[in-house]
Amino acid sequence: MTTFPINKANQIITGAFAKAAALKLKPLGVSVLDAGGHLVAFQRQDGASFLRPQMSSGKAYAALSVGMGGRRVEAIARERPHLTAGVSDLSGGKILPVAGGVLIRDNAGTVIGAVGISGDTSDNDEIAAIAGIETAGLTADAG
Amino acid sequence: MTTFPINKANQIITGAFAKAAALKLKPLGVSVLDAGGHLVAFQRQDGASFLRPQMSSGKAYAALSVGMGGRRVEAIARERPHLTAGVSDLSGGKILPVAGGVLIRDNAGTVIGAVGISGDTSDNDEIAAIAGIETAGLTADAG
Amino acid sequence: MTTFPINKANQIITGAFAKAAALKLKPLGVSVLDAGGHLVAFQRQDGASFLRPQMSSGKAYAALSVGMGGRRVEAIARERPHLTAGVSDLSGGKILPVAGGVLIRDNAGTVIGAVGISGDTSDNDEIAAIAGIETAGLTADAG
Amino acid sequence: MTTFPINKANQIITGAFAKAAALKLKPLGVSVLDAGGHLVAFQRQDGASFLRPQMSSGKAYAALSVGMGGRRVEAIARERPHLTAGVSDLSGGKILPVAGGVLIRDNAGTVIGAVGISGDTSDNDEIAAIAGIETAGLTADAG
Repeated sequence: MTTFPINKANQIITGAFAKAAALKLKPLGVSVLDAGGHLVAFQRQDGASFLRPQMSSGKAYAALSVGMGGRRVEAIARERPHLTAGVSDLSGGKILPVAGGVLIRDNAGTVIGAVGISGDTSDNDEIAAIAGIETAGLTADAG
Repeated sequence: MTTFPINKANQIITGAFAKAAALKLKPLGVSVLDAGGHLVAFQRQDGASFLRPQMSSGKAYAALSVGMGGRRVEAIARERPHLTAGVSDLSGGKILPVAGGVLIRDNAGTVIGAVGISGDTSDNDEIAAIAGIETAGLTADAG
Repeated sequence: MTTFPINKANQIITGAFAKAAALKLKPLGVSVLDAGGHLVAFQRQDGASFLRPQMSSGKAYAALSVGMGGRRVEAIARERPHLTAGVSDLSGGKILPVAGGVLIRDNAGTVIGAVGISGDTSDNDEIAAIAGIETAGLTADAG
Repeated sequence: MTTFPINKANQIITGAFAKAAALKLKPLGVSVLDAGGHLVAFQRQDGASFLRPQMSSGKAYAALSVGMGGRRVEAIARERPHLTAGVSDLSGGKILPVAGGVLIRDNAGTVIGAVGISGDTSDNDEIAAIAGIETAGLTADAG
């Protein structure tokens, strides 16, 4: 069962796209996953390439699978690539270990989902993800 | 590149959910794929189980991969199960060969994408998919 | 290394398309594989759905992998589905066990490759494959 | 549905082979993919090794999946190998992240497909791909 409400997921995507428009980012794919790593909502802007669904979900999945934001996930991938390779295998090849995957926390600090964005630079993807989460009144943890 | 506009995809999902509400269907997952079988938009209603993303996409992917609506896809699966099993293998296990995957055609009859819905009975899933496509002013081909 | 000449492969595809045009078949995908099961040439006609590359190759691969034309391959799939399922697994999911995969034999009767066609009915796919092989002056073995 | 015309795909292959002959390149495999990453046409020259179908398609698929020419794809693979490894996993192992995959753009700059070539050095593969695309009156984007 989903543990993340669809209306919040849609708010996140709307907020992320608004930030992307303000910053004139490239076309994005935005995935919102629940705490179990399952997709709640996804949108791909016109012109975004076709692997953006998997890439955006993969960033969010990576963050959720180890309970860390994508920035820390990517730092680990640089420092201990064998660890990240193992995690990827164990996940069934579902993770993209780079910035742009951001944990969503509630007011108590509990992880209730994650956002992954892919399309512009990883730094800009992350900025849009944080903006989306804050639009929905939730707390972003980019790592 | 996406070849199906995101605003049309969102209209389809909104239209499908409206039909589902009118018919009091169970919580749904709705996937809209472009002509190449790549996800453009997805939404999962509160209470829908976690495999609905893959199940809804799998119905749409099955229809697109052979150029037939899901109703015909399912009929073939009954008549020639070895054929459908082979297609599933060749697709990398991406297809769900049942009703509820509906091709989207433009005014010229060209396939421009597909909708897949999963959550209620296959018949009801299909009804919601057709309603969504028609909401967006496009032509549904359920097979 | 390829053991089937590209000029013969192209003649086969041209011949198959000519037969398809004469019979007004639906848009086809045509694969020509060498005796080792590796692709030599492929063409997909405008309007053919996107899994036709895998489906046409899968028919030819199935025929080559057991040294029988696709018609016999499909008969076995109906009679002993567990056998076909096992072969599919062993092949890494590369086979489509239906008619439309046709072995290519030289004048001595040796199998030197196979043609697979997908797009119309399996019977019509097979007719086009046989026509293509004969256009190239080779012998077709449909099983 | 294919979104790239077969006659243009064949012109590209003919043009690439003509360039290869002029430069005395080694035997090549040439894949032309539509915008959704699906094969439209492939030819493997006599003497080209048997994995050239996958290698040439993998270059084109890599370029399309992230919307960048193969030269940039390869640069990213050197700088952020964990990113490329993740993309490879997410694609189901379908990408070859090296030069020789070239995006095809129409006059408006829209990506409408990609060419991948494998058989000689990556630089020479790329030269032949660009020549093929220009033969068909289209614009090459090697990254």
